[in-house]
Amino acid sequence: MSLKPFTETMLPAVETELQRIVGQLDEPRTATFHEMLTYHMGWTGERCGPEAQGKRIRPLILLLTCAASNGDWQTALPAASSVELIHNFSLVHDDIQDKSDLRRGRPTVWKKWGEAQAINVGDALFILAHLALLDLKDKFPAEATLKAGRIIHEACLKLSSGQFLDISYEKRNDLSIEDYWPMIAGKTAALLSACTQIGAVLGGADEALQETYRDFGHYLGLAFQVQDDYLGIWGDSALTGKSTESDLVAGKKSLPILYALGKEGPFARRWAEGPVPPEEVFQVAEGLAQEGVKLYTQETVNQMTDLALLALRTADPQGEAGEALFELVQQLLNRQT
Amino acid sequence: MSLKPFTETMLPAVETELQRIVGQLDEPRTATFHEMLTYHMGWTGERCGPEAQGKRIRPLILLLTCAASNGDWQTALPAASSVELIHNFSLVHDDIQDKSDLRRGRPTVWKKWGEAQAINVGDALFILAHLALLDLKDKFPAEATLKAGRIIHEACLKLSSGQFLDISYEKRNDLSIEDYWPMIAGKTAALLSACTQIGAVLGGADEALQETYRDFGHYLGLAFQVQDDYLGIWGDSALTGKSTESDLVAGKKSLPILYALGKEGPFARRWAEGPVPPEEVFQVAEGLAQEGVKLYTQETVNQMTDLALLALRTADPQGEAGEALFELVQQLLNRQT
Repeated sequence: MSLKPFTETMLPAVETELQRIVGQLDEPRTATFHEMLTYHMGWTGERCGPEAQGKRIRPLILLLTCAASNGDWQTALPAASSVELIHNFSLVHDDIQDKSDLRRGRPTVWKKWGEAQAINVGDALFILAHLALLDLKDKFPAEATLKAGRIIHEACLKLSSGQFLDISYEKRNDLSIEDYWPMIAGKTAALLSACTQIGAVLGGADEALQETYRDFGHYLGLAFQVQDDYLGIWGDSALTGKSTESDLVAGKKSLPILYALGKEGPFARRWAEGPVPPEEVFQVAEGLAQEGVKLYTQETVNQMTDLALLALRTADPQGEAGEALFELVQQLLNRQT
Repeated sequence: MSLKPFTETMLPAVETELQRIVGQLDEPRTATFHEMLTYHMGWTGERCGPEAQGKRIRPLILLLTCAASNGDWQTALPAASSVELIHNFSLVHDDIQDKSDLRRGRPTVWKKWGEAQAINVGDALFILAHLALLDLKDKFPAEATLKAGRIIHEACLKLSSGQFLDISYEKRNDLSIEDYWPMIAGKTAALLSACTQIGAVLGGADEALQETYRDFGHYLGLAFQVQDDYLGIWGDSALTGKSTESDLVAGKKSLPILYALGKEGPFARRWAEGPVPPEEVFQVAEGLAQEGVKLYTQETVNQMTDLALLALRTADPQGEAGEALFELVQQLLNRQT
């Protein structure tokens, strides 16, 4: 049980920092704008609270990596807030792009305030992320702040390219498993690898160790996403009636689906016939398992997890924070929902 | 004629730098994404060319300010490209938010590729703006790069707040002239004042001179916007039939309209009755003039221009670039379209 003491001290500190940064918009004329941001962050509005805030995984990993590189995690708080704001900027825009009605169980920003304001809310979160990062300069040399900035901006460019691919895939039927990795490398792994790399930079790790930590974040991101894709078909909520939870109904081009299409077997023929209705979800998921797709997906999670753990062991993270990092990996990759 | 030699050398250099930065997305998988950006920037697609590119006013002013502060404008090119990319990011999102079909006479990005991809194109331009700025570090101390970053991010936060106000004003009928200034200070003046301030920072001006240049950009932005509002009602294309050009038809909460509403006279009564159709534009514009609104608007342009010129004279810009700055102000504020 080495992770808990860290989450109990780090996460409230992140939350305080985030609220301070977003608070810059808390002025009479922009009070409603401020409210849109605090609603999305899970601090205000209907059903606000921990559930609505999400898990704050990215800042947690950044701070743990910093501490495990023998750094003082408190000094890295501006970077931790920055990556969380970037994650949330991408969620707000993602929800508009996907026309998602719900985020963490609550109406999305665009559903509440319209698309025009939601685009602007995403933009503001992104801008605040950049302002947050600049606060590093009180504790670090200017060069370290610039390096963290470059890592983040390059990750964002990959995020944006991954998002382009994701949107463009929706209308394509000529995709194969090779099209999968560049998309999720951008959409999921880029920001996580930025978190671990920046944590190492701010912890004082040398170049080689920074790269090793970056690899750790990269494979962790891939493992996490493939696990997500697995749960999107064989997870409890995907299988048991809640149709919106199944990637089969949503028609999402996830790893198992792209892999199964490449087999050109029963699933590929069924997929070509049109959307899978909720009542067929169980049967199609079962068929996929029989074609070996379930096993392949689980093995891919295991492979990526092994690569993440290999990188983490190579990084040799120090102290209690190092143990907490190993525990966090186990927690993230053993989830059932 | 001191401006022309500068535009002829600076603007091609800006264009080359912009193309290099946007070129980062020019990879096989993201070729279509790259095309969306180059289309918006006016380099590719139907009717590409100088008209489609816009005037590149912001980089020009930044580079002139740098040169007029005795700096080497070539070293400031990364910042010049950055502000132009930020301007274009805001245009792409603006067009989605306003549902505008045309930008610089061509179909907007969202019209061509849909809203989801257009949101992403705006985001990518914004990310590239940050990456562009980091290239300053090859020529300047890290502290100067961070300072330029802070100026830009703070300007963007004002831009975003101004955009929030603009969108929220659409549905409000309780606005007065006091609501006007915070909106355009954000939407128009914030980025222009960032341009002149950063130009001065990179040109080596001291703190006081940086502030004076910032004031110059601020008032220039206000003057430019009020001039735009004037032309939106009494400009040739607003008056002569092209209904989409008149702010009266669009119902835009511009300075003359907010001022006239405050007078609670004939215009306010007409406005309360509903939208102004194109065939009524000439008559309503004439009525506004009779209520003194045309004169008030023109006087406001003059006031803001005087304040801009006062700041510029106080800054005492040096050499040919200094003369070019004065000429640029005259050109911007004497336009009829």
